[in-house]
Amino acid sequence: MPLWKIYHPAGAWTPAEKKELSDAITRVYAAAPLPRFYVVVIFEEVAAGSFYVGGESHGRFVRIQVDQMARTLPGPILREWWVNRLDEVIAPWVRDRGYDWELNITEPPPDLWSVQGRIPPPFDSAAERRWVRENKASPYTLAEKLPASLPFAPGTTGRDS
Amino acid sequence: MPLWKIYHPAGAWTPAEKKELSDAITRVYAAAPLPRFYVVVIFEEVAAGSFYVGGESHGRFVRIQVDQMARTLPGPILREWWVNRLDEVIAPWVRDRGYDWELNITEPPPDLWSVQGRIPPPFDSAAERRWVRENKASPYTLAEKLPASLPFAPGTTGRDS
Amino acid sequence: MPLWKIYHPAGAWTPAEKKELSDAITRVYAAAPLPRFYVVVIFEEVAAGSFYVGGESHGRFVRIQVDQMARTLPGPILREWWVNRLDEVIAPWVRDRGYDWELNITEPPPDLWSVQGRIPPPFDSAAERRWVRENKASPYTLAEKLPASLPFAPGTTGRDS
Repeated sequence: MPLWKIYHPAGAWTPAEKKELSDAITRVYAAAPLPRFYVVVIFEEVAAGSFYVGGESHGRFVRIQVDQMARTLPGPILREWWVNRLDEVIAPWVRDRGYDWELNITEPPPDLWSVQGRIPPPFDSAAERRWVRENKASPYTLAEKLPASLPFAPGTTGRDS
Repeated sequence: MPLWKIYHPAGAWTPAEKKELSDAITRVYAAAPLPRFYVVVIFEEVAAGSFYVGGESHGRFVRIQVDQMARTLPGPILREWWVNRLDEVIAPWVRDRGYDWELNITEPPPDLWSVQGRIPPPFDSAAERRWVRENKASPYTLAEKLPASLPFAPGTTGRDS
Repeated sequence: MPLWKIYHPAGAWTPAEKKELSDAITRVYAAAPLPRFYVVVIFEEVAAGSFYVGGESHGRFVRIQVDQMARTLPGPILREWWVNRLDEVIAPWVRDRGYDWELNITEPPPDLWSVQGRIPPPFDSAAERRWVRENKASPYTLAEKLPASLPFAPGTTGRDS
């Protein structure tokens, strides 16, 4: 996670354009920072005869579903900002090409998730920061599950003078 | 939203029948009232060799996933009624043609949702009523975010006699 | 529910192997016990040019989405154990064949769910046990909605000596 599923008309983008779009999406999350390999984008072509909006076949519609870990978007201002941010990111491939579109985000539980058979470390932990740097899943210790920016870090007493 | 995904056997319906089914689905929501263009239906053909029920390949199965905004179905009676209502609506295309089927509804957060790059107005607001009439997304004011049937409406003092 | 969607590279498995994998998945739930027919597995082939991980096309990636009824996984230990259990079950078809993979579980509301037009009986009820035995959906009575192992069962007074 995040997992993006993009339902789109046949031939909407070339593979090179799909790569560009998925790279643009990935950069939004990488800036958090989150590990780049967390970001999975699946493109699904839907024929006009299988795509209906308001009861009418629609051959120029893009429907995007984003699954993002719950608790990563706390508070109404951050949530609204995030939706707007995602709409901006996709605009060159969607709005600017004349497609109609709709986007929504779901929030699956982060504790029911695994990558390469391993439950990922907590959000913003030291282990996650290492996964960001290494861009791959690997074992991590209990100590690495602590927040990356911990005021009371292990080994720190505040009286080391 | 609502977004309907209908996983079905190859050749289950002609495009004309898909349009009829998606129109029947749209009418249920339009009666709420909700804007017709909120209703998106995607049909996905699944070959029998890729569709398993209870560990057995099933060539006559229809699996329906409905994503509907959270908070639009308050209370157990309305929720049960709604599930039954949807089963009735699809019956002519599913049950009456001898398919087995299963349906479930998820409730994604309504604040993480946008249409044409715009977060839709609150459920049952004046702006939503206008979107129902115009059947398209457009800018709306803060005043239009108020409930469509507001007891204490702006400009109303209750002493206008 | 559970509904498994398995996004996989073209030609990852033969239909016979898909059946084996879906049977292995079904057995995990059948052991709960849950009715076997609750378990639906849909395989979706995704071409490498439509499958991106971290902004790069990935031709050896398996992404699994599992929708499971909310409230069936109470508590952090059971939840972690369950994720690990699922990873073990799929390992012979995924890890052991050199695929990269990711898996997550969502928890849709169990009261917005129907099978063959009927809302399934409560988790662990007498009716559910009968559905396990019969492996098909059928009408059930109010009494059958009671827990299968009820300490104060109807007809039991605790003073029958």
